[in-house]
Amino acid sequence: MRIAIIGFGAVGQGLARVLADTGFTVTAVADSRSACINKDGLDLPEVLARKEESGLCGSAGIGIADILSSGAFDILVEVSPTNAETGEPALSTIRSALAMGKHVVTSNKGPIACAYHELKALADINGVMLGYEATVAGAVPIVSGLRHGLAGNTVRSLHGILNGTCNYILTRMRDEGLTYPQALQEARDLGYAEADPTYDVKGIDAAIKLVILANTLLGMDIRLSDVDITGIDSITLEALSLAESEGATIRLIGEILPERNQVRVSPRVIPLDHPLVVDGTLNAISVCCDLAGPVTFIGKGAGPYPTASAILADLNFIRDSYDRGA
Amino acid sequence: MRIAIIGFGAVGQGLARVLADTGFTVTAVADSRSACINKDGLDLPEVLARKEESGLCGSAGIGIADILSSGAFDILVEVSPTNAETGEPALSTIRSALAMGKHVVTSNKGPIACAYHELKALADINGVMLGYEATVAGAVPIVSGLRHGLAGNTVRSLHGILNGTCNYILTRMRDEGLTYPQALQEARDLGYAEADPTYDVKGIDAAIKLVILANTLLGMDIRLSDVDITGIDSITLEALSLAESEGATIRLIGEILPERNQVRVSPRVIPLDHPLVVDGTLNAISVCCDLAGPVTFIGKGAGPYPTASAILADLNFIRDSYDRGA
Repeated sequence: MRIAIIGFGAVGQGLARVLADTGFTVTAVADSRSACINKDGLDLPEVLARKEESGLCGSAGIGIADILSSGAFDILVEVSPTNAETGEPALSTIRSALAMGKHVVTSNKGPIACAYHELKALADINGVMLGYEATVAGAVPIVSGLRHGLAGNTVRSLHGILNGTCNYILTRMRDEGLTYPQALQEARDLGYAEADPTYDVKGIDAAIKLVILANTLLGMDIRLSDVDITGIDSITLEALSLAESEGATIRLIGEILPERNQVRVSPRVIPLDHPLVVDGTLNAISVCCDLAGPVTFIGKGAGPYPTASAILADLNFIRDSYDRGA
Repeated sequence: MRIAIIGFGAVGQGLARVLADTGFTVTAVADSRSACINKDGLDLPEVLARKEESGLCGSAGIGIADILSSGAFDILVEVSPTNAETGEPALSTIRSALAMGKHVVTSNKGPIACAYHELKALADINGVMLGYEATVAGAVPIVSGLRHGLAGNTVRSLHGILNGTCNYILTRMRDEGLTYPQALQEARDLGYAEADPTYDVKGIDAAIKLVILANTLLGMDIRLSDVDITGIDSITLEALSLAESEGATIRLIGEILPERNQVRVSPRVIPLDHPLVVDGTLNAISVCCDLAGPVTFIGKGAGPYPTASAILADLNFIRDSYDRGA
């Protein structure tokens, strides 16, 4: 199957590196300022080298519109940066591709959080698939886990560590006695936190992931503004010590209670032997199901290769489904 | 879709109870001494009540052969007890169903451990699917996780707690200072261990599950006799205390190293904060993948409803695949 990659930062480039031996052919790549198209398949090492040298993946004269109008792809992979407010410009790109009868796979949280029900309906009408495993918890196969592995269950509750930056900061505060500003600076130095960490430490990133899980897998229809959000930026070492004296610690927990239509992100005291107490930048999600009981998934929540793992899972699922149908 | 249930013990009865509102129609049920068939769908509450009262699900005059020859089902669900040596009689039943072009879903470890490659080839030739999520780790969606959620990854290693009885015994020895015989007796009293616990405590049950994972998902072709097995029956409180003094404990760990073609089950010392240190009868599996990194799955390894959860996942996957293909 032929793939167009929209967005060529760390995730897009990581994906291009791992697609080499998979039988998928990349026919188009776009970054924010350029694009390249070859209906017979691009020379990916050459595209990666050009990006490395010039900052552009292709020619500045062409862009996403040219890739769409070429039609030279079966699956559009949208991996540009997230805009959580409007989902744009990714949302429009994804809409166009689905309307053309092309499958879409994305790691972009914006369009899925803002417009999943509309996009899913558009995909269904056009007989194509919409994969978004990479939007939540990186390599952790939570979307496939809930959709396939636990199909037939009713999820009573979901609790998760969905932001690796916050979990890293809280882990370091507990393990090394760093203050919040010290741990945040360390996370910045290691590249785990952005220069402006608001999005992570205020709990907004975790909340967007909860919106995606709630709307796409738990039968809900909520917006980011429906989530009750408290961040980690006022957690003190004293609060952590108090938790520790009770055999517990503090972590930023996302929670969905579908039956109460309740979704929130907040620092919570949890026992040290709880499966959600994971170290460093790991993510973890526990669901409580009517038949299966409690099921926990733990893994890397971010990074080019973990994200590529989730994208590849969606790509393989689309290929396998159509192989079976054909 | 129409379902025939072969085997009507705790798992078969649990499944019959949860299938009520799922859109699947049960047209046949067999236990070891009787069967019932209704091409328009059985009255499941009636069948369950008859089994409860008489020990038989149907008429003693008919059996599995009659169900097969009726052809009145789309999916055969084989949930009879495991025979690990030959896989029989389930293996023959599954072979017949696949050869008839019927899908098969099973919780029976025997046929999958003994003959997966043969059965998968037979399913492929006949254009049908073979689901076996329920054979390993109960409700934990490890088969779907490796096949779909982590598709495209190479698994470097797999480590797991795959026998809830052993994990319960070791948990109780650690937490309460019970000796091995005391903890085993408690597990028997609670129904977690059989009167003859050999199969569990000698590590054989865990080894069979490793054979299934190795052969069906990790590209290997091994037999039970290829697994290096040590059980938990000679673990002492002194050994546990020694581990504890190092911040660790002892658990029965199954291990697969695909690149070394190495599969073993043995008691291992692991740090108390390791994700595989789960309590009581829980199961846990960690895989180390080239792209995703380490991914851990934790959940209930046994019980009628956790097993029904895994069977339902396979049933839904078959239905969804054919809906997409149609």
